[in-house]
Amino acid sequence: MLIKKSKRSATCSAKSEVLQKAQKAKIAARAAAMLSGAVKNQSLLALAAALEEKTPKILQANFLDRQRAQKNKLSAALLDRLALDAQRVKAMADGLRALARLPDPNNRVLEKTRRPNGLRIEKISVPLGVIAIIYEARPNVTADAAGLCLKAGSAALLRGGSDAAESNKTIAAVLRQALQANGLPPDLIQNIENTDRRAVSELLSLREYIDLLIPRGGAGLIQKVVRESSIPVIETGTGNCHVYVDESAKLPQALNIALNAKVSRPSVCNAAETLLVHEKIAAKFLPPMLRAYQNAGVKIHGCAKTRKYAPAVLPATPEDYAREYLDLEIAVKVVAGVDEAIEHIYRYGTKHSEAIVTENKRNAEKFLQKVDAAAALVNASTRFTDGGEFGFGCEIGISTQKLHARGPMGLRELMSYKYLVRGQGQIRK
Amino acid sequence: MLIKKSKRSATCSAKSEVLQKAQKAKIAARAAAMLSGAVKNQSLLALAAALEEKTPKILQANFLDRQRAQKNKLSAALLDRLALDAQRVKAMADGLRALARLPDPNNRVLEKTRRPNGLRIEKISVPLGVIAIIYEARPNVTADAAGLCLKAGSAALLRGGSDAAESNKTIAAVLRQALQANGLPPDLIQNIENTDRRAVSELLSLREYIDLLIPRGGAGLIQKVVRESSIPVIETGTGNCHVYVDESAKLPQALNIALNAKVSRPSVCNAAETLLVHEKIAAKFLPPMLRAYQNAGVKIHGCAKTRKYAPAVLPATPEDYAREYLDLEIAVKVVAGVDEAIEHIYRYGTKHSEAIVTENKRNAEKFLQKVDAAAALVNASTRFTDGGEFGFGCEIGISTQKLHARGPMGLRELMSYKYLVRGQGQIRK
Repeated sequence: MLIKKSKRSATCSAKSEVLQKAQKAKIAARAAAMLSGAVKNQSLLALAAALEEKTPKILQANFLDRQRAQKNKLSAALLDRLALDAQRVKAMADGLRALARLPDPNNRVLEKTRRPNGLRIEKISVPLGVIAIIYEARPNVTADAAGLCLKAGSAALLRGGSDAAESNKTIAAVLRQALQANGLPPDLIQNIENTDRRAVSELLSLREYIDLLIPRGGAGLIQKVVRESSIPVIETGTGNCHVYVDESAKLPQALNIALNAKVSRPSVCNAAETLLVHEKIAAKFLPPMLRAYQNAGVKIHGCAKTRKYAPAVLPATPEDYAREYLDLEIAVKVVAGVDEAIEHIYRYGTKHSEAIVTENKRNAEKFLQKVDAAAALVNASTRFTDGGEFGFGCEIGISTQKLHARGPMGLRELMSYKYLVRGQGQIRK
Repeated sequence: MLIKKSKRSATCSAKSEVLQKAQKAKIAARAAAMLSGAVKNQSLLALAAALEEKTPKILQANFLDRQRAQKNKLSAALLDRLALDAQRVKAMADGLRALARLPDPNNRVLEKTRRPNGLRIEKISVPLGVIAIIYEARPNVTADAAGLCLKAGSAALLRGGSDAAESNKTIAAVLRQALQANGLPPDLIQNIENTDRRAVSELLSLREYIDLLIPRGGAGLIQKVVRESSIPVIETGTGNCHVYVDESAKLPQALNIALNAKVSRPSVCNAAETLLVHEKIAAKFLPPMLRAYQNAGVKIHGCAKTRKYAPAVLPATPEDYAREYLDLEIAVKVVAGVDEAIEHIYRYGTKHSEAIVTENKRNAEKFLQKVDAAAALVNASTRFTDGGEFGFGCEIGISTQKLHARGPMGLRELMSYKYLVRGQGQIRK
């Protein structure tokens, strides 16, 4: 591609930080694509060691972020996401070490054919190039994303949330120094320090330098990115997931799954947000189920039929069915059967993870086929939609769109491919 | 997903044609996803028969388009692209019949794993949903794209060029009638008749209804789409392709390939636009090569070294190296070797198809690895980057981006996937 000078932003007289770092990332990406698996793994181990060695420096920076966050009266949940301690830094380092143990996703022969005219065509995996990741409060994403991109042979252009600015800056500096000390280009990891929102808008316009953009965060961020970006985006993370308990479900199994899907970790995207129950099983199933939720501290929004079994349940509105609670809160609805469940999911779901609990094979297969989601599950918790649980070893997020990658995105989903064609002088008629 | 009413355009009082048709396509797509391969193939044959049967009606509509085009003084090349005759209608029908012979791309098991906890995970291909295609003058695209989408289990939302408005309307009506006569929802094929440019802008905003957007046409259209669309886009078709003749190349083979890559069909994206020649072979290779181009009517832009061998050659500017001529015109440059060739391609290429002619295995492998393109070819013409030549049976275009699909896009590249997870009551710790 002919590299033209990008239009300069009206708000700055010189080349902006975002443009500079995107350009450096693009140059570094060419080198990254040629690194062997062994060199990348060695570097990941060195990055891990550097994180542990520089723990005091990282915690110092994190302390500044937390001080500012307390002044700004951030919620306890956000403060917790922001906070690092020695154990969390060690977890970041261990994450990089785990990446080093995974097979190299680059240069894999995906297909091989020989055409009648003698051409031999190979389809091989290749790195994407520059991967930009825009995320919010968690500073550990800085190390995780940088490590994933390195292993994938791509450069990482990172723009974390302003709340974690000091932590991100320090983590990125530590990682860059470690790259350099290992003879790799430090420009493979770029941390954008500008916390102005316009920096994000500028990033979204740099199609010339960025091959993929992954927003990780709330619906507001994701919508802004999808609306504004001219760079290919993978939407991640919105999960209005359902558990449908069919007439033939084994009751204790259904209760276990519906409870686990909601309460095992309510703040994550694969947690269930609505429980659908077959009307013929409601009288037996709902009383213990609602009690179990209430005992676990779950606030319940129910349809009229549900509320017959527990008057304390709030009435559910259509908005309640559309909401991703990400909290100890759930909507419950009694339905006429698998077809109504599928229709409800079509109307309110976000194409993430949908589960049916049933002993009826026909209903199970109908649900698997007809539900349009990244993962459709039978007799298992929605919480299993996860890179680790799927055996990918790691993940950068869970895609809820249908293009390129769907569901958990591991290293393989962070790759592109190309065709190598070997001939002996063939020309086309 | 919760279907909300889209914001109405300020320019129309009722729901616009684009919104209506997008909504209908989305509903029809649910039915399309469930069609068996046999039903789809039967329908494709019925669509083919309908096209042939209604040839007079189609040609009548095409006559109106051509009359208007002549009044509007369209170029001879555009008039030719627009023109249909009985033979071209038959070719459209035969294209649909060929699709019917290809295997069903839906519901293929792409992977199968069993996790240590007993979960069985299957990754299967599924339709994308609604595929929008924006294209220019060729009315045959209406039938080709509708057929590909149907075979892929998706609905087609088509917006052809205004020059072919009557032809597209008639072809779509014939296909819709044939669908209906065969018991399939006619809404699987939607032709947007509004030729206003604002209709395209509206289309680009309908992320809620459209899963993939493929623009087919000139750079202007593609740039508008990439800039404005909030829908995932696959960029197709810009091909500034190179042939590099290395020092060790067999001269007759190099001449054949470089000539074929340029002149066999200069108007297509896989035609070569620049020839790069190793300096040590230039004196032997360039005189006959330049003569061969000149005999074929090719206008040549050459670097200073090239012009020594043929003074009639025009001097090449950087713009000449960046141009996609799509015509009997080429740039020629003498380079110091494979590294300079790779750098030149990095600077000016569009990541489409790049060929090296060489007998040196190391240079061949270096070129294959380092050139960042959908297809890298050794000792073969760039013209082979094509769905048919790659054995895909058909193609909707050639992707020059790295996400989702790269290179020729056949039926498989028009699919998404989902995970089916079968458990026996598993919950997550």
